[in-house]
Amino acid sequence: MPGDHSSKQFDLDLEAIRSKVLSMGGLVESQFADAVQCFRSGDIPRAEQVIKADENVNRLEVTLDDACSHLIVRRQPAANDLRTVMATLKVITDLERIGDEATKIARTAKSLHERGPVGGLNHYESVRVMAENTADLLHDALDAFARLDEGQAARIIARDATIDNEFGAIIRTMITFMMEDPRTISTALDTLWVAKALERIGDHAKNIAEYVIYVVEGKDIRHSDYVYTRLGSAI
Amino acid sequence: MPGDHSSKQFDLDLEAIRSKVLSMGGLVESQFADAVQCFRSGDIPRAEQVIKADENVNRLEVTLDDACSHLIVRRQPAANDLRTVMATLKVITDLERIGDEATKIARTAKSLHERGPVGGLNHYESVRVMAENTADLLHDALDAFARLDEGQAARIIARDATIDNEFGAIIRTMITFMMEDPRTISTALDTLWVAKALERIGDHAKNIAEYVIYVVEGKDIRHSDYVYTRLGSAI
Repeated sequence: MPGDHSSKQFDLDLEAIRSKVLSMGGLVESQFADAVQCFRSGDIPRAEQVIKADENVNRLEVTLDDACSHLIVRRQPAANDLRTVMATLKVITDLERIGDEATKIARTAKSLHERGPVGGLNHYESVRVMAENTADLLHDALDAFARLDEGQAARIIARDATIDNEFGAIIRTMITFMMEDPRTISTALDTLWVAKALERIGDHAKNIAEYVIYVVEGKDIRHSDYVYTRLGSAI
Repeated sequence: MPGDHSSKQFDLDLEAIRSKVLSMGGLVESQFADAVQCFRSGDIPRAEQVIKADENVNRLEVTLDDACSHLIVRRQPAANDLRTVMATLKVITDLERIGDEATKIARTAKSLHERGPVGGLNHYESVRVMAENTADLLHDALDAFARLDEGQAARIIARDATIDNEFGAIIRTMITFMMEDPRTISTALDTLWVAKALERIGDHAKNIAEYVIYVVEGKDIRHSDYVYTRLGSAI
């Protein structure tokens, strides 16, 4: 069994990995913000940069997965400590997928602006609130992961439902636009792909929040009603 | 360091987990096949069963993640063996996400058929080839995982590109339908959500194939050109 010394070394190694995961989170956050800006402004060179930057995120995923494996082999953590490493591995996967979704937003921004705008449908305004709420949710999820704040994590899980509702509303609005003016169909569809990417990013932020609770409480709350029971009448 | 005895026990434990992961794969495969059938036929009670069955898949994810953690703590595997456990954990995550996508297909099937069909657009025929290719890809990915067949895994990664192309073609077809007859917009959109879910399932099958190569070759080929180099002029 690992003694005190080995356990302390484990803590140091784990903290080093966690801090790199948080840097990866920061990178993904700015990739996402840039992609949304490109969707708004049609800055195509910047969209290409976002797509290119995804390679860095992908490399970080491989490096950090590897660092987690080395940590396990070298420190042979006990069940409790291993749980934190497992959750960190899952967070890394979610961050990489958020990077993928940001890339999809940048690609959509490119094709939409290359095709040129159509009158009547403001594609950015249609997703603005959802995009802002998703960015906040992701930011708060990373913050909850940094501070291992389970209260904040529980609230994030509840807030993801709002984003899903906003997605539903955007679908209905876009259908109306397409029906009233078929010239808006391509732009409306691009707007829907962006909204879909936002919905996925919200899901990944929720996953990160679930792993925070898993680490803090030692409880796997995925696919359970835990958060609703915990927040009670607050939601 | 683990001796021969402990390493043999590790192999037995790991094989038990792998066989359960394959059962989970079988469950997810049939959930997916059922969802596509519901999209075809509009069998709403069956769609509700698919949605309900996702709880079993979710429970399996939690149980099997847990089994992997126990295996690591109990057997303290060396780097080589740990790699297999890590890959198994990632496969479990992908299978759970495939279950989610199958659920989305079932939900779309429900809403489409509750709204009733519109003339001119055959929603099922529009995605049939893509759905068949995706089901084959998933089946072959699970087969490659069962037999740890890296050759088959490399071919799966290449085949995923075909599915992505089919997705692009479906988008173009649906835009044409919507432009020519705005009454088809809701059905065309539902068809696109199903095609999007198929594209995601193809990605997850590709991920599973990548983990097979990671286990067999000890090589992390995610985000690399490995498969194209390996298959050479065959693709």
